[in-house]
Amino acid sequence: MPKYKLYYFPLKGRGEIIRLLFAYANVEYEDVRIPFDEWPTKKNDFPFKQLPVLDVDGKRYSQSHAIERFLAREFSLVGKNSSTLAKADEFGEAMQDVMMKLPWTEKDEETKERLMKQALTETIPPALEIIENNFTNGDYYAGELTFTDIGFASCADHLLSLDSSVLDGTPKLKALFERIWAIPSIASWVKKRPKTAM
Amino acid sequence: MPKYKLYYFPLKGRGEIIRLLFAYANVEYEDVRIPFDEWPTKKNDFPFKQLPVLDVDGKRYSQSHAIERFLAREFSLVGKNSSTLAKADEFGEAMQDVMMKLPWTEKDEETKERLMKQALTETIPPALEIIENNFTNGDYYAGELTFTDIGFASCADHLLSLDSSVLDGTPKLKALFERIWAIPSIASWVKKRPKTAM
Repeated sequence: MPKYKLYYFPLKGRGEIIRLLFAYANVEYEDVRIPFDEWPTKKNDFPFKQLPVLDVDGKRYSQSHAIERFLAREFSLVGKNSSTLAKADEFGEAMQDVMMKLPWTEKDEETKERLMKQALTETIPPALEIIENNFTNGDYYAGELTFTDIGFASCADHLLSLDSSVLDGTPKLKALFERIWAIPSIASWVKKRPKTAM
Repeated sequence: MPKYKLYYFPLKGRGEIIRLLFAYANVEYEDVRIPFDEWPTKKNDFPFKQLPVLDVDGKRYSQSHAIERFLAREFSLVGKNSSTLAKADEFGEAMQDVMMKLPWTEKDEETKERLMKQALTETIPPALEIIENNFTNGDYYAGELTFTDIGFASCADHLLSLDSSVLDGTPKLKALFERIWAIPSIASWVKKRPKTAM
């Protein structure tokens, strides 16, 4: 088993899907959380001067989605064939589009709150409904559990923290979130993980 | 060989990397370009009400990056092992970050022009330099030709159409663009493809 070391901030953010994949697979890794005040002096140690970075026996990979996909292959979460993986990817990309509807970069607090409410009530629910309508292969989007079901659950967890009714119009997606969150190794991580606002 | 049908608009946009992958592999496909005025009546025929969609023997895949990855597997452009593929993905994701710096959704022409110039001179070149500094494996980013080298070339082609000097600070990336564009099957497509503004 390789020695894994994940570098990220004390946040869920772009690191949490990676942590959930480790949790799901019950694979040990070092969960390095760099405090924000140390980042300016440390950022030049990392290839893209950004995090997350995964170190695998000294080899470093950057970019969260590249890392997620690498671990998905390591942990056999990429589906039984190329067509399954394409459906899994379709789900992952569609959820990225959904998450991009949140006003991540808005600086003004008042504007941000307004745009957030608008996204959660006006643009995100219809986008989730389109995904729901394409969710036709049983318990998991691609017909079997893949890394993008776990990625979806992490996104849903964030959306639900902003608006607990956001999945009410999409019962299949709501059930998928609950199904993933009930997997014992995932449930155990979610219970014990550090509490962070984001 | 499966029967491939690509549905997209009369644009390069999110469809061109897919077309370049077909071109590279010399694989036949139907390049369906739906005129914008027909789209409102046709959009409900597609799973996510958006394009591109790839039809493979009647099975439909949505989301451009999911389609690119599917074809990359079909055409053996995913690297020799999981580590190579992770580096390829890292490159692809980093280039997506670069392209997101362009003001795609800005509606006001004057503001758009200003933001475009700012992106091309202030934010994009340093982002490309960081990628250049991680380009250490020879002629291709992951050490062998993968789908994200071809994806990069398509992005570079767009950036160069906006500012012909944008790659001047990154000679390795400039050489990669020229290397990909010189592949005979790619060069032949670029020469014959429909002329579109975007």
